[in-house]
Amino acid sequence: MSSEPTNDQPDQTEPTAHPGRRLSRRHLLLGGAAAGIGAAGAIGVDLVAKAGRGGSAAPAVPLFSGTATVPFFGLHQAGVDTEPQARATFVALNLLPGVDRAALRRMMRILTDDAARLTQGEAALADSEPELAVVPARLTVTFGFGPGLVAIAGGEAPGWLRPLPPFTIDRLQPEWSDGDLLLQIAADDPLTVAHATRMLLKDLRSFAAVRWVQSGFRRAAGSEKPGTTMRNLFGQVDGTANPVVGTADFDALVWGQANNPGWLAGGTGFVLRRISMDLDKWDGLDRSGRESTMGRTLANGAPLTGTKERDEPDFEAKTSLGFPVIPEFSHLRRARSEDRSQRIHRRGYNYDEAPSGTGVSNSGLLFACFQTDVDAQFVPIQTRLDTLDLLNQWTTPIGSAVFAIPPGCTPEGYIGDTLF
Amino acid sequence: MSSEPTNDQPDQTEPTAHPGRRLSRRHLLLGGAAAGIGAAGAIGVDLVAKAGRGGSAAPAVPLFSGTATVPFFGLHQAGVDTEPQARATFVALNLLPGVDRAALRRMMRILTDDAARLTQGEAALADSEPELAVVPARLTVTFGFGPGLVAIAGGEAPGWLRPLPPFTIDRLQPEWSDGDLLLQIAADDPLTVAHATRMLLKDLRSFAAVRWVQSGFRRAAGSEKPGTTMRNLFGQVDGTANPVVGTADFDALVWGQANNPGWLAGGTGFVLRRISMDLDKWDGLDRSGRESTMGRTLANGAPLTGTKERDEPDFEAKTSLGFPVIPEFSHLRRARSEDRSQRIHRRGYNYDEAPSGTGVSNSGLLFACFQTDVDAQFVPIQTRLDTLDLLNQWTTPIGSAVFAIPPGCTPEGYIGDTLF
Repeated sequence: MSSEPTNDQPDQTEPTAHPGRRLSRRHLLLGGAAAGIGAAGAIGVDLVAKAGRGGSAAPAVPLFSGTATVPFFGLHQAGVDTEPQARATFVALNLLPGVDRAALRRMMRILTDDAARLTQGEAALADSEPELAVVPARLTVTFGFGPGLVAIAGGEAPGWLRPLPPFTIDRLQPEWSDGDLLLQIAADDPLTVAHATRMLLKDLRSFAAVRWVQSGFRRAAGSEKPGTTMRNLFGQVDGTANPVVGTADFDALVWGQANNPGWLAGGTGFVLRRISMDLDKWDGLDRSGRESTMGRTLANGAPLTGTKERDEPDFEAKTSLGFPVIPEFSHLRRARSEDRSQRIHRRGYNYDEAPSGTGVSNSGLLFACFQTDVDAQFVPIQTRLDTLDLLNQWTTPIGSAVFAIPPGCTPEGYIGDTLF
Repeated sequence: MSSEPTNDQPDQTEPTAHPGRRLSRRHLLLGGAAAGIGAAGAIGVDLVAKAGRGGSAAPAVPLFSGTATVPFFGLHQAGVDTEPQARATFVALNLLPGVDRAALRRMMRILTDDAARLTQGEAALADSEPELAVVPARLTVTFGFGPGLVAIAGGEAPGWLRPLPPFTIDRLQPEWSDGDLLLQIAADDPLTVAHATRMLLKDLRSFAAVRWVQSGFRRAAGSEKPGTTMRNLFGQVDGTANPVVGTADFDALVWGQANNPGWLAGGTGFVLRRISMDLDKWDGLDRSGRESTMGRTLANGAPLTGTKERDEPDFEAKTSLGFPVIPEFSHLRRARSEDRSQRIHRRGYNYDEAPSGTGVSNSGLLFACFQTDVDAQFVPIQTRLDTLDLLNQWTTPIGSAVFAIPPGCTPEGYIGDTLF
């Protein structure tokens, strides 16, 4: 998984799933299957390539991005460093009374087997709608363990595996918080996500009950240039400062061991915050107010001291009146630490539900992030934002959950086998 | 709009938005922008084509389906005969007290102007997030008028513009039913739908209040072969019997005048039924039971007497035991009339919401259909299904709404200008 193409190197060649073959990045871009492309996707690319070489203006076989797959087995679980898919559903479950260590082992074997099949475009063993399984669309299923599950398993929990400390801005609702087991089900196709979610929840009937379901979206696959940073419903680019997948920086921040227990080697930590965004109130703020709040331009997300999205912000730069160009209480300034280890890998999604009452919107962000040590990486950032972040006037955290993401497994093993 | 490519003629050439130029259908398939493709989309296709002619295996510019547009102005509103987009949000509103004919005129002028811009990838005039408007992704906005609006406008209402007659299977909930004004907002990209929905609801703040919002999905654009009939969450192909866009048959069924008042010429009628599907109970039915219920195979949707999806069913065929091969009470048999004028144009979407209680799913179908005379076309079908349709055991209509879809307009006019 660490060999996936990343956003920042548009034209270099990248290894594919086929040893000894290299396809150019441009190749992979066609059809919106930008990353984590598996054998099926690669075949599609080949067909297009052959048609091109034949000199015909129209490829003989259209490329359907629905065939692209992300490998399931490996050192790490998929869905963490995978180029974000267009849709994601996060499900948290409560274990049923009486579910013990042996039952957990059975549960994870069944879930692993079904997830392994579904992600490769195959029906699950007990799939009653196999026709819905044929479009994998880069489906990944990522499992997370809450403190309750780890306790039943008798494993050592990492110190950070507990609810986040309370923040003054929080207005947490229990129906969006916590849980024993997490499923992150993501794909470029919503029907694929719906079918996989249902299959896995059916598997779980005798083990656990749904606690909450949160679904989110980004731009559709192929809608815009791959690698474009997502925009949230405030119109802001969202996630610019992410570490680059495949670099030592990323590996240290996400896959590093820190003080985690041994069973979590190859795994990481996960935080999901449901952040309600008051679009109606945001409308009252003019463009320059919005940009000052963020510390970035709206047009392309560049820091107010720069011209391009990924320019380093210059926090020392002053206006002619002597004020900082990037306001001290802007989101960019407050989120940024001098300590480069205080960083996270964001992989969030927008949500947009039917409004109730007189509001025009019920919208926000499923702020999802991965980091090897939640206490050392996420909490300091959130603490600074809690103390003073202009953006807090328009955003409210209403849900919060922390899970340990166990490592990946081999085809002979199952997710969680290092714990049980 | 009637020149759009249709599902059933995979390789014939079709006219495009550029007079005098014809691109092959295969051309248009690339990138998932299968139909209703506008100038921007066509440019993308051209770039790919040129790269192919150059003999390079990798096109120089990737094709992003997000640039494809559907024309807004025309004899008919878009979003009726447009190849269904991947996402749709249906919003019904109640007019506020005091909104009169003059206010309605202002309201429709504003809505028309914003919809015309947004569908072409331009920001609306008062758009506070213009960066979210740049990916039209085949956005269409289709307006519908309920009986209350037509009454305020002082227009003659078609006879069928009222709540459907009650059916015994109905368990209608007011929160999913009726309304004065309908917006059908559909695109291949969910962020595009969210942004357009918000813009239009902001326009409506002083005219109307949201009554209900229903969002649905099909397979993502590009996920599978264009023209593939959608599957619902039961795994069934859904919508096989649709008339073919661009044929006289379609025009009569959807754009025909029937007894509609003059202001509705070029318009049509719309029914939205929210049909809850009990997936948990459906799981108890085996494959052969499912196929008997439908009268079609699950694998490819062929009638039980045929081998291909669009084969004509043979209701006379008998099994060796003398029973009809297609059961008398199957959905296919009951939905079908000898009277070919009793047909509709279906354009439905799946919904899949978070389950509550002990259920695993809260899912179903936004059964959306267009027909020029709801009473003469939709009601007889629904009456037959109400009396006896095996599928009723697993499906329950929980919402119902009927709207008149006014004709399209010219760039000088506005939607509804024939009524006001």
